[in-house]
Amino acid sequence: MSALAEAGITPDAAMIAAAARRLAPVVRRTPLLSSPFLDDIAGRRVLVKAECLQHTGSFKFRGGFAAVSALPADARAQGVLAWSSGNHAQGVALAARMHGVRAVIVMPRDAPRTKIDATRALGAELVLHDRATEPREEIGARLIAEQGLTLIRPFDDPQVVAGQASTGLELAQQAEAEGVARADVLVPCGGGGLTAGVALALADTAPGLRVRPVEPEGFDDTVRSLATGAPQSNTARTGLCDAILTPAPGALTFPVLQRLCGPGLVVSDRDTLRAMGAAFERLKLVIEPGGAVALAAALFQPQVLTADAVIVIASGGNVDRAVFARALALED
Amino acid sequence: MSALAEAGITPDAAMIAAAARRLAPVVRRTPLLSSPFLDDIAGRRVLVKAECLQHTGSFKFRGGFAAVSALPADARAQGVLAWSSGNHAQGVALAARMHGVRAVIVMPRDAPRTKIDATRALGAELVLHDRATEPREEIGARLIAEQGLTLIRPFDDPQVVAGQASTGLELAQQAEAEGVARADVLVPCGGGGLTAGVALALADTAPGLRVRPVEPEGFDDTVRSLATGAPQSNTARTGLCDAILTPAPGALTFPVLQRLCGPGLVVSDRDTLRAMGAAFERLKLVIEPGGAVALAAALFQPQVLTADAVIVIASGGNVDRAVFARALALED
Repeated sequence: MSALAEAGITPDAAMIAAAARRLAPVVRRTPLLSSPFLDDIAGRRVLVKAECLQHTGSFKFRGGFAAVSALPADARAQGVLAWSSGNHAQGVALAARMHGVRAVIVMPRDAPRTKIDATRALGAELVLHDRATEPREEIGARLIAEQGLTLIRPFDDPQVVAGQASTGLELAQQAEAEGVARADVLVPCGGGGLTAGVALALADTAPGLRVRPVEPEGFDDTVRSLATGAPQSNTARTGLCDAILTPAPGALTFPVLQRLCGPGLVVSDRDTLRAMGAAFERLKLVIEPGGAVALAAALFQPQVLTADAVIVIASGGNVDRAVFARALALED
Repeated sequence: MSALAEAGITPDAAMIAAAARRLAPVVRRTPLLSSPFLDDIAGRRVLVKAECLQHTGSFKFRGGFAAVSALPADARAQGVLAWSSGNHAQGVALAARMHGVRAVIVMPRDAPRTKIDATRALGAELVLHDRATEPREEIGARLIAEQGLTLIRPFDDPQVVAGQASTGLELAQQAEAEGVARADVLVPCGGGGLTAGVALALADTAPGLRVRPVEPEGFDDTVRSLATGAPQSNTARTGLCDAILTPAPGALTFPVLQRLCGPGLVVSDRDTLRAMGAAFERLKLVIEPGGAVALAAALFQPQVLTADAVIVIASGGNVDRAVFARALALED
């Protein structure tokens, strides 16, 4: 864990700007897409930030690269370690490869096959574990102690949050170019790294864009935590939206969400699959379940939105064929 | 038919630049995407111009908008007519709607449901016909005579070709930004409007990028025409790649292809479906069969490519769910 993370430091504007500068030569500036058909469904303008088109198929490349590039050279040379159901794994793996250093990734054995294969193909050394019986934290701690690796946390790390914030900086510029000054900004929320990063970026650059986290049914810890004012946790452990099935809000991220975000939204798995179908049909995008919850809320819960426009982050696209086929088979 | 088209005029650099200027405020500058996994399959750098992310889900918006915006105001006010299996239909329909004029579209009754529905939803007046018994040219000619509409041809119109050429202008800039000066540029080819437009744009701006048309098995009229030096036609009429099933090369486009393009490539339907699966998995893009033939050639016929990089145009994404499910079900 980095000294910054141990100190519980929230990334400030300078740290966010520095991360964006390090990312600039390598990150994909993902497009902000739209379709008149989606506008019709939602009854307002719908703008979709296609982070599924990011390197490694999700926004996690941003945080992974920001964190690895921020390490002191000697620590970085020893290699990095991450635990992840798959998207953070790929982001850290590619960031490590781009820096020429080792990445050791602890992944659950039941992660989607496409994520396991892709992480390995990016050159990472994989350690597969059983979610129920082998806590990833213990496995990770042992490897770190033995091999001098640096842990890159999936969300409770200021440099990771600063990297995810670059999504928000782009979004602010793109929304302005579209003439959108007021909008609900819906963000798929697991541990809250992307949500916090985007909220921090927009607070500085586009105060009329209000971030609201979106979670799947059964994993609405952040939504309940925001509603009650105190961290809540989930009891369920597995579900459709594998990318965002975290047990509780992050220690670093939750205070940011409390300070900057509007009320959260909860969507059903069925609506998430319908949103994946709508993105297929109208945007020509492949979005994974955990990346589609925000679009699901925008399309199918228009009554809880507050502005004339809604901006949606489609945070990832790493979905197995069989799951995508389920979304296609579901008639809207 | 416009006076320019009747005169058989090939768009020159000035006409192409003017079309690009008219398009600039409305067109999507589609991203040039890549994946290390695709590079591995092809044994070289693979860059994919994602025109499936264009408005209406295909490059056809470019040509449709360029042509409608080039009409004299009085002719435009009377409305436009197009015949199309679906992508040109949508491009013209949206272009007409953006200009506030009528669009009458003659479409085959067996066009993909998603294309028929989308064209109607874009405000066009649809006239459905039977490909075998009711020639679209006759239906169109009657409506034009009765209603004073202007025909927007799918490819044999200089303004349409000039609009498609804007894809090539973007590509030249994007390839340069990627450091690619020499490449095979593979373009899905039906009537040759996109292929000719891109070839004209690159001839002026990036001579090291060599355009090569790609067609599906059974519809390789352009490939054979280029090989023999004289226009050849197809006997088959229906197939997987509905967007590019034209009977013969265009009168305006073929001479351009003869002058500027390298040898064409022919791909099997099976490889096209495999390429759609690869784009799903590695690029998070939905590509329709007719839009995926170039990627199929890049991935599965590397032996016939001549440069260290290959640029592929993914020309459209308007595919029915059942067809996409077939691609997903096919193991690579």
